[in-house]
Amino acid sequence: MKLKIYGDRMSQPTRAIIIFCKVNGIDFEEIRIDIAKGQHRSPEFKEINPMGQVPAIVDGRFKLFESHAILSYIACAFPGVSDHWYPADLSKRAKINSVLDWHHSNLRRGSASFVLNTVLAPALGLPLNPQAAAEAEKVLTSSLSKIESIWLKGNGKFLLGSHQPSIADLSLICEIMQLKLLDENDYDRILGPHKKVLQWIDNLKIATKPHFEEVHEVLYKAKARFHNNRLLLANNKMTTSTNTTTPSKL
Amino acid sequence: MKLKIYGDRMSQPTRAIIIFCKVNGIDFEEIRIDIAKGQHRSPEFKEINPMGQVPAIVDGRFKLFESHAILSYIACAFPGVSDHWYPADLSKRAKINSVLDWHHSNLRRGSASFVLNTVLAPALGLPLNPQAAAEAEKVLTSSLSKIESIWLKGNGKFLLGSHQPSIADLSLICEIMQLKLLDENDYDRILGPHKKVLQWIDNLKIATKPHFEEVHEVLYKAKARFHNNRLLLANNKMTTSTNTTTPSKL
Repeated sequence: MKLKIYGDRMSQPTRAIIIFCKVNGIDFEEIRIDIAKGQHRSPEFKEINPMGQVPAIVDGRFKLFESHAILSYIACAFPGVSDHWYPADLSKRAKINSVLDWHHSNLRRGSASFVLNTVLAPALGLPLNPQAAAEAEKVLTSSLSKIESIWLKGNGKFLLGSHQPSIADLSLICEIMQLKLLDENDYDRILGPHKKVLQWIDNLKIATKPHFEEVHEVLYKAKARFHNNRLLLANNKMTTSTNTTTPSKL
Repeated sequence: MKLKIYGDRMSQPTRAIIIFCKVNGIDFEEIRIDIAKGQHRSPEFKEINPMGQVPAIVDGRFKLFESHAILSYIACAFPGVSDHWYPADLSKRAKINSVLDWHHSNLRRGSASFVLNTVLAPALGLPLNPQAAAEAEKVLTSSLSKIESIWLKGNGKFLLGSHQPSIADLSLICEIMQLKLLDENDYDRILGPHKKVLQWIDNLKIATKPHFEEVHEVLYKAKARFHNNRLLLANNKMTTSTNTTTPSKL
C-alpha cells in the first residue's frame, strides 16, 4: 500500500515532506487537507491526526504526525534514501536532531508567528496582532543570525558544515520560504542582511531540482495573490483618502 | 573519558538527562552551570554550547545540546539502556519522536512561559508579564488536556499506552514538575483537574525510584523558598496596608 501524505502545500512542513519523498523517489499519494477551508479540524482528519494539524502520514496501518518525526521515519523506513539525509552514524544523526529540536522554539516560532501576524491572519479570518509581530520579528532575526554564525559555520554548502543536505536543511529552509508571503519591504529587511542564508537556500534548490521549485509553486501563486491584494487595498485607500480630503476637486 | 553533563537542576531538561543517566547506570560527571548567576552566558560555556543554554553534554570530543537530541543520543550510544526508553523498532521510535516534537510548541511553550511570567522572572531580575502569563496558561491547560485525551489514551501506565517509560515520559514530566514552583492555588487550579496526568507522574516516580525525587530536591527546596518569599511579601503588604489605611489604630 502506497504511503499517504495528508497536507496542504501552503504548510511549510508539508512541503518539506513532499519534496523529500520526490527527491528520494518514494511513491506516495498526496491527500490535500485545505487549511483555509478548515479541513484540518474535520472529524475525518482527526481520525488521522487527533491534534488537527498537517502534515500527517499513513503508512499501511501506521499513522504519524509531527513533521520531524515523519521525516526521520521515512528516511529510515524506505529503501533508497541516501545516508546524508539522516545519517546512520550516531553522532551525525544526533547533530541533525539537535538542529531540528532547536528549530521549534527559534526559527519556526519566529517565522510562523511573524507571517501569521503580518499577512496570513486576515486570509484565515483572524485579527492581526502588531505586538506579536514585533516580538516574532526579534525571534526570527535572532534565529537567522544564529543559523549563519552557528549552524552554517565553516565552508560546507549545508548545515553543520555538510556538503550534502539533511532533513534539517529541508525543514528549516521550507520554513524560511514561507517569508515569501511577506510584503517585499519586510522580506528584504529581514532576509537581505543574511547573505549566507540566501546562498544556502540556493544550494538546496539546486540539490533538490526540480522538485523544490515545483512543490513551492502553490506558495509563489499565493505570494502573487497577496501582493495584488495589497496593491488593491493601497489603491482603494488612496481613492478613499482623495475622496475624503479633497471632495471639491472631484 | 566520562560523559560530562553541563546543566542546572533548576532546569527541567537538565533534570531529565541526569535522571535518565542515573536510572540506566551511566557514569557521568555533572558540571553545574548556575543559570541564576548567568553562567550559561559565559564565554567558557559558549565553547560547549554556542546557544548559551543548558543542558549540554560532552562525550569524548563530541559536543551536543538540545535535551531531546541528547536523550536519544545517550539511549543509543551507551550500552545497557533498556529498549523501552527509546525503542529500536522504527514505528515505536517514530511515535516517541512525535511526542517529543509536539512537546516543544505545546506543553513546554505553555509551561515554561507560565512559570517565568508568574514566579521566576523576579528571581532572574526580569519584569513579570501578566498578559503573557494568561496566554501561556491557555497553551498549558490545552496541552495537559491533550496529554490526557491523546497521549495517555488507553490503559498503559505511560505515554502511547506503554507499560514502561520512554524518554518522552521523562522529558514531559520534568517539564510539568516545574509547576511545583507556582503559588499553590495556581498549581491546584491548573493540575488539579488532570487526574490522569497526576497518576502518570506518580507512575514515573515509582519506575525511576529513588533518582526522580533525589534529582528534584533542588526544585523542592526552591519551591519552599518561593513559598516563604510569598508569605513574607504578603505579610509586608498587610503591614503596609494596615499602616496606610488605619494609622489611628497604631
